[in-house]
Amino acid sequence: MAAWSERLAGVRGVLLDISGVLYDGGEGGGAAIAGSVEAVARLKRSRLKVRFCTNESQKSRADLVGLLRRLGFDVSEGEVTAPAPAACLILKQRGLRPHLLVHDGVRSEFDQIDTSNPNCVVIADAGEDFSYRNMNKAFQVLMELENPVLFSLGKGRYYKETSGLMLDVGPYMKALEYACGIEAEVVGKPSPEFFKSALQEMGVEAHEAIMIGDDIVGDVGGAQQYGMRALQVRTGKFRPSDEHHPEVKADGYVDNLAEAVDLLLQHADK
Amino acid sequence: MAAWSERLAGVRGVLLDISGVLYDGGEGGGAAIAGSVEAVARLKRSRLKVRFCTNESQKSRADLVGLLRRLGFDVSEGEVTAPAPAACLILKQRGLRPHLLVHDGVRSEFDQIDTSNPNCVVIADAGEDFSYRNMNKAFQVLMELENPVLFSLGKGRYYKETSGLMLDVGPYMKALEYACGIEAEVVGKPSPEFFKSALQEMGVEAHEAIMIGDDIVGDVGGAQQYGMRALQVRTGKFRPSDEHHPEVKADGYVDNLAEAVDLLLQHADK
Repeated sequence: MAAWSERLAGVRGVLLDISGVLYDGGEGGGAAIAGSVEAVARLKRSRLKVRFCTNESQKSRADLVGLLRRLGFDVSEGEVTAPAPAACLILKQRGLRPHLLVHDGVRSEFDQIDTSNPNCVVIADAGEDFSYRNMNKAFQVLMELENPVLFSLGKGRYYKETSGLMLDVGPYMKALEYACGIEAEVVGKPSPEFFKSALQEMGVEAHEAIMIGDDIVGDVGGAQQYGMRALQVRTGKFRPSDEHHPEVKADGYVDNLAEAVDLLLQHADK
Repeated sequence: MAAWSERLAGVRGVLLDISGVLYDGGEGGGAAIAGSVEAVARLKRSRLKVRFCTNESQKSRADLVGLLRRLGFDVSEGEVTAPAPAACLILKQRGLRPHLLVHDGVRSEFDQIDTSNPNCVVIADAGEDFSYRNMNKAFQVLMELENPVLFSLGKGRYYKETSGLMLDVGPYMKALEYACGIEAEVVGKPSPEFFKSALQEMGVEAHEAIMIGDDIVGDVGGAQQYGMRALQVRTGKFRPSDEHHPEVKADGYVDNLAEAVDLLLQHADK
């Protein structure tokens, strides 16, 4: 592999995944990953632009930022690109009224959205709310539509909590796709539109930006598809087999965000 | 389409799907589909061989037969090919110890199976037991195995109860396949091994047999793949769009089992 100086040359902006990179969720809100609080602070003091790009869909942006600040992170709502607000924009633009299968924690993001007489379904990481009854209701709504439209806030396979691996929204998206014979529209990583809006908000072109995430497909593969570079951290849901993924090869693998920031501060924007 | 006499010529054995053909499940056990009790009786009085071939995996064979008899059907346990007993055979042959994600109603079928220290997962139509917690547990068991093995008792998309369409096991199989990056082994229709055992138990070759079902893919497509003929009934989960399915064309579409039996008694085995 080329030297880090070559791999990181010309990077001006950094997109940071949150869960598994900054912190691991779990009991009591979760725990910061060692070194990440300081790494974010160092990055923000540097000449590099920084933005947070998450598929978190259990919590509203306000709640997520509140949690991160309690864990010591310097982050504000305006710095976070998240799928629920992006979905609301799409729903408004297309005049769609969703049936929501989402966690109670994120429901407030949809307060301004008309959910009467639904003509589409939005699913997010609903956690325990992915009951048979709720899944069946979403299925029945879709089957009654002439043109069933399903939005999925991300399509991650699983994420890591302090207690272990947890099913993410992706498997449930696949379940509804198969049940209804349809294909979902993904709002969130790895959708190109989502990276596009995060980069626009950061004011950096794709070829000048790097994504740092723990998901080899959603973070690394998605960012590379969009013309960015991407590093995978060996924290969060990282598994050793990710370094031999059959389709996706990161521009680099680092032990954690702290190491990524060391390398960026040394080699980027040169 | 050719005349019925041509389409049904040489049929000596009939495989009957149960749910959606004999009865629709639902409150209080469900209700016989009009004309089906008599149709089964007429078929059994004829020269044609008859066997029941179901993907029912919420109930044990004993409970299913008990319910059908209460609804008036002439059927015994020995006449029913069902996925749970077929799965038990496979587990024993391969020395596998399953983690079971199944409905309580079918658990007794696995009484003789060692479920300690599981090295595979078996999922069936678990209904309300497809909770997030249970799905996550099955996922975690699979992710801890070096070679994760997942058996799915059928892969139906949905079925019809008297109250409406209900998600079947297939969507949940797809969810676990996607979450773990694996492919399930299906025990039940449309697996060729399953049709093979049903035909062996009936003593009829595939080219002499016809399947009657309400599932255009699982019943009709599966049976045709195995070299049988197949009729779709317009009861149960049938939807008008099934008659224009992009991949599967039944050898005939009939309003219900009674019409299928009328035609068979008139034209088969000639």
